[in-house]
Amino acid sequence: MTRFRFEIAQKDARARTGTLHLARGSIRTPAFMPVGTAATVKALRPAEVEAAGADIILGNTYHLMLRPTAERIEKLGGLHKFMGWTKPILTDSGGYQVMSLSALTKRSEDGVRFASHLDGSRHLMTPERSMEIQRLLGSDIVMAFDELVALPAPREAVEAAMQRSMRWARRSRDAFDSGAEHAERSALFGIQQGGLDERLRAESASRLIEIGFDGYAIGGLAVGEGQAAMFACLDYAPEQLPENAPRYLMGVGKPDDIIGAVQRGVDMFDCVLPTRSGRNGQAFTRDGPLNLRNARHAEDLAPLDATCGCPSCRTGVSRAYVHHLVKSGEMLGAMLMTEHNIWFYQELMQALRTAIASQRLDDFAARVLSRYNARAAS
Amino acid sequence: MTRFRFEIAQKDARARTGTLHLARGSIRTPAFMPVGTAATVKALRPAEVEAAGADIILGNTYHLMLRPTAERIEKLGGLHKFMGWTKPILTDSGGYQVMSLSALTKRSEDGVRFASHLDGSRHLMTPERSMEIQRLLGSDIVMAFDELVALPAPREAVEAAMQRSMRWARRSRDAFDSGAEHAERSALFGIQQGGLDERLRAESASRLIEIGFDGYAIGGLAVGEGQAAMFACLDYAPEQLPENAPRYLMGVGKPDDIIGAVQRGVDMFDCVLPTRSGRNGQAFTRDGPLNLRNARHAEDLAPLDATCGCPSCRTGVSRAYVHHLVKSGEMLGAMLMTEHNIWFYQELMQALRTAIASQRLDDFAARVLSRYNARAAS
Repeated sequence: MTRFRFEIAQKDARARTGTLHLARGSIRTPAFMPVGTAATVKALRPAEVEAAGADIILGNTYHLMLRPTAERIEKLGGLHKFMGWTKPILTDSGGYQVMSLSALTKRSEDGVRFASHLDGSRHLMTPERSMEIQRLLGSDIVMAFDELVALPAPREAVEAAMQRSMRWARRSRDAFDSGAEHAERSALFGIQQGGLDERLRAESASRLIEIGFDGYAIGGLAVGEGQAAMFACLDYAPEQLPENAPRYLMGVGKPDDIIGAVQRGVDMFDCVLPTRSGRNGQAFTRDGPLNLRNARHAEDLAPLDATCGCPSCRTGVSRAYVHHLVKSGEMLGAMLMTEHNIWFYQELMQALRTAIASQRLDDFAARVLSRYNARAAS
Repeated sequence: MTRFRFEIAQKDARARTGTLHLARGSIRTPAFMPVGTAATVKALRPAEVEAAGADIILGNTYHLMLRPTAERIEKLGGLHKFMGWTKPILTDSGGYQVMSLSALTKRSEDGVRFASHLDGSRHLMTPERSMEIQRLLGSDIVMAFDELVALPAPREAVEAAMQRSMRWARRSRDAFDSGAEHAERSALFGIQQGGLDERLRAESASRLIEIGFDGYAIGGLAVGEGQAAMFACLDYAPEQLPENAPRYLMGVGKPDDIIGAVQRGVDMFDCVLPTRSGRNGQAFTRDGPLNLRNARHAEDLAPLDATCGCPSCRTGVSRAYVHHLVKSGEMLGAMLMTEHNIWFYQELMQALRTAIASQRLDDFAARVLSRYNARAAS
């Protein structure tokens, strides 16, 4: 059984394409992971997510620990069996949602106390508890528990959170390794912090490398700093991390964010954008995003995207019909748009992998972005 | 091209099984028609409705005339193309929804004036306008426009509505027949009225037969009178209608309603129950309905119904998972439950057809109902 192996097949400048091998399956990189927050990629069946080309999905530790609880999922045979997804699952540490969704949060060196946004019940999340939950879920890629700061923040706050995150990374590593059987068939990723400060990022990377992880996430970006600032950070952050390990940019992003990050050496992404947009009437297309609520689509017989391979675009579902569904608040609108958007993202990743493999990524990116940005969103 | 032909293959006491042939496909009877109100069977793709075994669906004239409008659907190529459903569609006349959903309704001999529940816009629905809308939609089975009374009502009110409905049936017939091309490839059904009064039902039937229709609906039932009263009416109403034409009981019903009506000679049904229940957390099973919100399902690894052929039951989706989805307000819960319920209804109809074909309907019905009613719903 392969516990974890990352093979880089081809490089193109800083970009890489390859395969991440895990016990439950292989992940083609660069990879986009659809978000399956509460044990479901919203509005899609597992087979539909797989058909779109996703090799791995993400589950949210915070949501699952509260409902139905990690203990119940473990009792029922683990998250894969529970939701009917057989391929790998990456779980986040819960840290981000604890800070952004829960109430009455109180941080200390031990961890974070918080009240559930569902029922006000009180919980303590620590690196050890996060590892335990992710083990109970049966996660394939476990994320270390870290502390976050919203940018902009004083350098001292950014540094303090980074330093604490590195201490928590050590505790995460130790707790993960103590989960004998689970540790033998899953992987643990550390998370680099340090905001937009190159020196702090470098120190964070060194500390993580010293501990040693299977993969390395770049955390604390895409939190409001803007694309230019994010790309400036990505001009150095990925290369501070081990060359031969996968690099995961958490919570990113828009298609152009992903393209720019792949050019800068990132291998893995997750974002709620394709699924959330699908529920809000926004479709991604090769000519930029479309707002299907817009009345100009009401009699348009064109598909969402003529070159898209999703079942709707392939079988002639029209913008006029999707417009009608969205305007009418019909669930089918969210279903078809979410499916389309997940296909769009997966087809983009496949095209990026192909472009890197043939060492023409920059040309490809320029062409895709030129077309994507040519029209104003409408 | 077959415009309309109804073949009764086998009878079993008053029950019949056969095939209704239409230009767009054949319908096995007794048939259950899933309701696709606003150009979508809620939460299901057309291919999923078809896979469940549905030969025909129902579209709501009232909803479609308001949004996206019949004129727009006609411009876009008709309802079938619009929603991607290639098999037959029956459209109701709009009368029921005009009276139950709209505001400021005002009835006259000409028709019904009303204000849209969506935007307050004013409309006039007449037999002629109803036929025009159903023609613009491209309906395969068009329903005559009739007037309804809520039961209980004074006999005079029931009779007056029946008499007016018969005058409107005549106008519906004339208007339908003037829709040249559409009239040549679709069918028109009259609707028997008369409440729970056998003599009024008989008079209504005679008037409809005199006009002549392809099929005959039994209207004005399942409006609160209770199953016993409905069955008492069905002990005479179907036999007042032509033996060799299909009989359609509108808006019915629960599984036991359908079984009893089939035993009394009804061939076609429609009801929102399987789809609406699916969105409300209720699953139909051979052991009676289940409320998946109930905490007792939280750790139950059994499928919704072990003998059901729907994709969820076939692939091991557990009650525990569906419970979680429903409790979490996840769209996938409504999707899977709706699909399951449509399968349950279609499998029931198939079993009824088989039982009639082998002339053992009463035994079959007794066995099914005994099991269905053995446990309290939970």
